[in-house]
Amino acid sequence: MAEKVTPRDVDYSKWYTDVVLQAKLADYAPVKGAMVIRPNGYAIWEAIQANLDKMFKDSGHVNAYFPLLIPESFMHKEAEHVEGFSPECAVVTIGGGQELEEPLYIRPTSETVIWSMYKKWIMSYRDLPILINQWANVLRWEMRTRLFLRTSEFLWQEGHTAHASYEEAEEETVKILNIYKTFAEDFLAIPVIAGKKSESEKFAGAMHTYCIEAMMQDKKGLQAGTSHNLGQNFAKAFEVQFQDKQGELNHVWATSWGVSTRLIGALIMAHSDDRGLVLPPKLAQRPVVIVPIWRGDDEKKKVLEFADQVHSELKQKYNVIFDDREQYKPGFKFSDWELQGIPLRIEIGPKDVAKEQLVLVRRDNLQKQFINRQELLVKVDEALSDMQIDLLEKARQFRDDNTHVKDDYKEFQATLDQSGGFIKSHWCGSAECEARVKDDTKATIRCIPFDEPQEKGHCVVCGKESSQRVIFARAY
Amino acid sequence: MAEKVTPRDVDYSKWYTDVVLQAKLADYAPVKGAMVIRPNGYAIWEAIQANLDKMFKDSGHVNAYFPLLIPESFMHKEAEHVEGFSPECAVVTIGGGQELEEPLYIRPTSETVIWSMYKKWIMSYRDLPILINQWANVLRWEMRTRLFLRTSEFLWQEGHTAHASYEEAEEETVKILNIYKTFAEDFLAIPVIAGKKSESEKFAGAMHTYCIEAMMQDKKGLQAGTSHNLGQNFAKAFEVQFQDKQGELNHVWATSWGVSTRLIGALIMAHSDDRGLVLPPKLAQRPVVIVPIWRGDDEKKKVLEFADQVHSELKQKYNVIFDDREQYKPGFKFSDWELQGIPLRIEIGPKDVAKEQLVLVRRDNLQKQFINRQELLVKVDEALSDMQIDLLEKARQFRDDNTHVKDDYKEFQATLDQSGGFIKSHWCGSAECEARVKDDTKATIRCIPFDEPQEKGHCVVCGKESSQRVIFARAY
Repeated sequence: MAEKVTPRDVDYSKWYTDVVLQAKLADYAPVKGAMVIRPNGYAIWEAIQANLDKMFKDSGHVNAYFPLLIPESFMHKEAEHVEGFSPECAVVTIGGGQELEEPLYIRPTSETVIWSMYKKWIMSYRDLPILINQWANVLRWEMRTRLFLRTSEFLWQEGHTAHASYEEAEEETVKILNIYKTFAEDFLAIPVIAGKKSESEKFAGAMHTYCIEAMMQDKKGLQAGTSHNLGQNFAKAFEVQFQDKQGELNHVWATSWGVSTRLIGALIMAHSDDRGLVLPPKLAQRPVVIVPIWRGDDEKKKVLEFADQVHSELKQKYNVIFDDREQYKPGFKFSDWELQGIPLRIEIGPKDVAKEQLVLVRRDNLQKQFINRQELLVKVDEALSDMQIDLLEKARQFRDDNTHVKDDYKEFQATLDQSGGFIKSHWCGSAECEARVKDDTKATIRCIPFDEPQEKGHCVVCGKESSQRVIFARAY
Repeated sequence: MAEKVTPRDVDYSKWYTDVVLQAKLADYAPVKGAMVIRPNGYAIWEAIQANLDKMFKDSGHVNAYFPLLIPESFMHKEAEHVEGFSPECAVVTIGGGQELEEPLYIRPTSETVIWSMYKKWIMSYRDLPILINQWANVLRWEMRTRLFLRTSEFLWQEGHTAHASYEEAEEETVKILNIYKTFAEDFLAIPVIAGKKSESEKFAGAMHTYCIEAMMQDKKGLQAGTSHNLGQNFAKAFEVQFQDKQGELNHVWATSWGVSTRLIGALIMAHSDDRGLVLPPKLAQRPVVIVPIWRGDDEKKKVLEFADQVHSELKQKYNVIFDDREQYKPGFKFSDWELQGIPLRIEIGPKDVAKEQLVLVRRDNLQKQFINRQELLVKVDEALSDMQIDLLEKARQFRDDNTHVKDDYKEFQATLDQSGGFIKSHWCGSAECEARVKDDTKATIRCIPFDEPQEKGHCVVCGKESSQRVIFARAY
């Protein structure tokens, strides 16, 4: 607590790192590009896992576990896939003290090894669909660590499904994207734009990629989840065919989809402030802290007795921190729990005991609310659920305020330079114009939004006809 | 279902593999030594994780995540540790297309990388204890796969705690061993003997290792969990010191402890039979299957209506499989669910509907029990909880029946050869006698049991004085 979090407007990037390190969410590991997820950060991942896993299972998915190491030859079976992933892999060349005949790649993603197994498991339409998800670590070589957002190894879930038709695979791809969108908004309290990636931004090996895109407080975009319709690419690469109802052999249709510990970075960047972490209540394993305040033994006895009762009642429902540490002053405790992002603080002092009241302070707005002791549970429930809703609304307002509609390329560039944010512009669909924008401005097409109305216009770069606006932004 | 499970008395080893493959618990992966955990097997791991994790958290532990890759130099810091683990590691020598300056080891266990972080986090006695657990994959090179029991990569939890004194570390080591014992008996329904490992069987780098040892149906031993008091070995290797209350600098005291997906192998070997998997109800994600039985449309209507009601009532409490598939006969369905180890089958035929009754069949004893429709929930609860208890008792009886007390080395050897099992014998404590037994019989000291009474005797090998019997057995 000797350190101070750098304010956002002084240095946004340093602010982020300060919050992550000082709230003890993560730390740098001894190997370049790697991080340690500390208990405070891992608790958030556990909450993400538990809630998403339930959504996956409720929609018919099951979990499995596939190997970490992938033979080099597998990586080469799908042409785009190897080109996209091979350069960023970590490669095992020694095992059990001996040089290996074939190098093994640490999975950067598991399509190849999973489809080699699906070949064994799929014979007939009766074996379909396969709706498997995996919670695992993956590794993509990185030298420039950005905790949670960009690290060599990260934790994620990767769904890999197999279907009898294109339509079924497409339905699955969209279903999962909707789960991601619902999860992002209802749990992370981050509003997202769902859409399709351009050809150059799609997953290496996919027919097409859908995604959800969020805006951070520095107005940059962040991809929060992707869902790929892989077509028959991996089934063809791994020769996975099934006999359909008519007895004909067909290649299987596939999807894959994932979200990662990057979501924790998104969460921090979307809501936190200069005091530290702001955590949506639904993802807080410990949503409430009680801080009793007293001077002298007489007050202490009264306050602790009252606070104990409050604690007893609340802990029936919530995982509550009861901070009766003697060696720290209330102000220190307030700052400490604010830094760590505990959503709701309850202060109880001698005056509150006398009036049979207590003080609620929400982490996001820091406003004091005096409530009657009798209303404890109702008001705590209400404060937490209001906070969850308000965080989403605030983030939505921020995003909308920083989304600009531009039809002129000079204005487009000026807006990106001066205010940043999302730019909605027409695009002709060509990779050339997309590349030009990236060269000129470092902005990329975040997505072609699903719910953007059809509208005639002209590409902001080349002026050719276009029927829909897309989202451009600089991004993480 | 075309295949048949090889009976145990024909070929125990093949029986085990048949059960694992045919019940779709796991499969061989394309890389030697690796396995795929299929959804049926992973569901068991999820149940193990959920229950153990709760026990860890209830006793004050938190989860975190440390990196997969460990610098080679770290492996060399603790002398015994490197000697024990280095030869069985997989080594990354290429990252991002470039030869690495320092090779990186895929973690065989995480003491070294974790203690390099504890050095950053521990300054004073106020930072202690640290009670961290990690759920992760680890890798120890293996060419001879035995699904769940012996694979290169496996999933496990590894606890790593840091304490201010030897006594505290010792208390933690014992506390965890008790958690493992309780879990093994209450959830896995496997009776275990808790004790201490001999010097030659202890963990590489530990002061001493405690363990729980189980007996499989082929009478071999299986180590089901270990808890190590690491003393100050890792703190000294990584120079982790703390300032105590008196202001003095001291090295930190450590423990580590783990159980792995091997427990799934233990579970199968302890309870399953020639029809397939027998799963303790507490670890079954789907504990009940309803199989309606009918001929002709008239019966079908009546039976399905009744069965639907039963299903509706049961699914309030249990995750129930309702097997109304038309294309399979009841006999096929019975065998299929028996193979997959669903603990309780409910059969409902036209006669049952008429009598307002149903038939319960427990997977372990396959006895039919006719129950009144009104008693449904009570009887299902009872059947599942009785089965859980009976599995443990049966396994305990089997172990006790196959535990032999021997004082003569020839008898000791003859017993091992003729009937196998656990042999309780006196041992002088020397590594020589231990090695001699291993050379002569392939049996090892499974543990020095905690609750074995002190008793004067003579080492079964050399005849020197001894004060306690230990457990010898051939083991997995």
